[in-house]
Amino acid sequence: MKRIDKLTNLMQESQLIISDKMMIFYYTGHRFDVGERMIALLVGKDHEPILFLNKLFEAPKDIKTIVYEDGDDTTSLIENYLTHKNIAVDGNWASRFLIPFINKGYTVVNGSPYLEQIRTLKDDFEISTLIEASHHNDRIMLEMESLLKVGMTEIELAEIVREKQSTTPLTGVSFEPIVLFTENIADPHGVPSSRTLREDDVVLIDMGGIYQDYCSDMTRCFFMGENPEMEHLYKIVLAANKAGIEAVKPGSRLSDVDKATRAVIEAAGYGPYFVHRTGHGIGIECHENLDVSSKNDRIIEPGMCFSIEPGIYIPGKGGIRIEDLVHVTKDGVFVMNQCKKEFSDIKK
Amino acid sequence: MKRIDKLTNLMQESQLIISDKMMIFYYTGHRFDVGERMIALLVGKDHEPILFLNKLFEAPKDIKTIVYEDGDDTTSLIENYLTHKNIAVDGNWASRFLIPFINKGYTVVNGSPYLEQIRTLKDDFEISTLIEASHHNDRIMLEMESLLKVGMTEIELAEIVREKQSTTPLTGVSFEPIVLFTENIADPHGVPSSRTLREDDVVLIDMGGIYQDYCSDMTRCFFMGENPEMEHLYKIVLAANKAGIEAVKPGSRLSDVDKATRAVIEAAGYGPYFVHRTGHGIGIECHENLDVSSKNDRIIEPGMCFSIEPGIYIPGKGGIRIEDLVHVTKDGVFVMNQCKKEFSDIKK
Repeated sequence: MKRIDKLTNLMQESQLIISDKMMIFYYTGHRFDVGERMIALLVGKDHEPILFLNKLFEAPKDIKTIVYEDGDDTTSLIENYLTHKNIAVDGNWASRFLIPFINKGYTVVNGSPYLEQIRTLKDDFEISTLIEASHHNDRIMLEMESLLKVGMTEIELAEIVREKQSTTPLTGVSFEPIVLFTENIADPHGVPSSRTLREDDVVLIDMGGIYQDYCSDMTRCFFMGENPEMEHLYKIVLAANKAGIEAVKPGSRLSDVDKATRAVIEAAGYGPYFVHRTGHGIGIECHENLDVSSKNDRIIEPGMCFSIEPGIYIPGKGGIRIEDLVHVTKDGVFVMNQCKKEFSDIKK
Repeated sequence: MKRIDKLTNLMQESQLIISDKMMIFYYTGHRFDVGERMIALLVGKDHEPILFLNKLFEAPKDIKTIVYEDGDDTTSLIENYLTHKNIAVDGNWASRFLIPFINKGYTVVNGSPYLEQIRTLKDDFEISTLIEASHHNDRIMLEMESLLKVGMTEIELAEIVREKQSTTPLTGVSFEPIVLFTENIADPHGVPSSRTLREDDVVLIDMGGIYQDYCSDMTRCFFMGENPEMEHLYKIVLAANKAGIEAVKPGSRLSDVDKATRAVIEAAGYGPYFVHRTGHGIGIECHENLDVSSKNDRIIEPGMCFSIEPGIYIPGKGGIRIEDLVHVTKDGVFVMNQCKKEFSDIKK
């Protein structure tokens, strides 16, 4: 069944307005980059999907489209097609578009759970594309390792990542590449700087690209020389990464995966230094709905794709993060990244 | 007076929730990149500004900050500080954050007009930074012109733009560079392709960079050889660009500027081929609030900064756009771009 038909079937009690660019792409196959302008795809069981689109953009041939102009009253335009007084709107819709409906007496609920329910479970085509995307990421990671040279800056390396991720068949980075050396790794939100690489540094590369619309995302660390303290951390984080992967199976909970990675790091005494969740969903966007955290007791199902990325961050000293993407199979887990991660393999 | 104090003074009847990243940056000087997480800056006349921030991000030292964790009920957290039942929220706030307030009985209005009212009028420091940003854009445009060579692709040239706009003192592009040749110019939303440059092509370059947080944005066309039809269009569009600039003065309306550019193009018989508005506001973002269009009768005031970018687009054949940034002075207009645009100067 087509994605949009599955979605329509969920809409028994209300109509749904979708505005998020990537949701519209997911459900229709069309990308619209309308900037600050209004776009809405109206879905309901009593009518075919209807797209409301500014005339500046090309209307798709396969969706009923209502074209409007700058300055038109788009609330009234959409209202002409509303048959319910309760509507669901996607959770990203800008309040400036939503508020007029509230003022007109509509009851509004957050429709994102409907949208996510379908998108979260990847089909075979999506999974094979994600695997291919990750293979490219694996390849580029090895290429990056071979380029590491004393004197290069974090920014330089990040630029090379960007270039490689933009080279056919890849079409760009899935997020701004993160390249950090030793003490800078301590900031889990660190941004590449002009810090130059030294002989005994640890290098963290967290990167991803886009392959046929699907994202990759992986983190590896490389040791340029001896650093016993970071080596100690590395082995703990690697064990946590593996424990997380092992905890993935249908019927368990996403929080169990977080518990598994956290248990390893806590047992080693570094619990307070693992300051973020274990992972996030991925697909046509790098950060998708699935939250792999202690707070999410959602049951793991086949078709889910997410990252497992435990880390330890010691302010002022350094840190380690090791990240792989996995997808959930009928009876277990498939690790989409094949790039080496044993300590003996990532030390120069 | 500080920007945030000016804003607080506007809040006599309600409290305002600001979530937009660039609005928070404009009003506080701090940038927060919280992704899908909730961020809110609460402004009201009975209290100092209060920031609600996930603990993953570093709290600023100069703003009262309430820190929350993933999974916390942020609606209740903010509610603790609400003294009014009517709130204004910034027009970009995601509906998933807004809907819970509506369900709790709050009356909500779009607060963006308050936020824009102040931000739209640039102070002297902002204007001088914008001018400097445009000087760099002028310089890079001339460098690009000198690089044009038969055989290069649109993508290659766009990549060079990206590189130059990312070189100190610039910190990146203000939007994806647009480089298009002849027939591809006909699409006002065209994206650079692998089309190679030929001897008789017209080249359109629409680009901007970021200098000390402020954006530039300019379009020029260059003629590689003879093209009488496009030359004819060029002269019309240049006249329209100049007429638009001349129409800018305090007390007139933004729609008058649009009328002025459009009149020139209509008189020449190309009205239907000028398919977009005349311009947009600019500042720390490339597209800011001011809409220079036939629908916007807002009075022009000193301190406004916007683009004037008439164009003609002939499907299948080609097009021309010429864009400059201006700011409104006490008694007229200052054109921030100095890059040549007379036909005799842009023909090889």
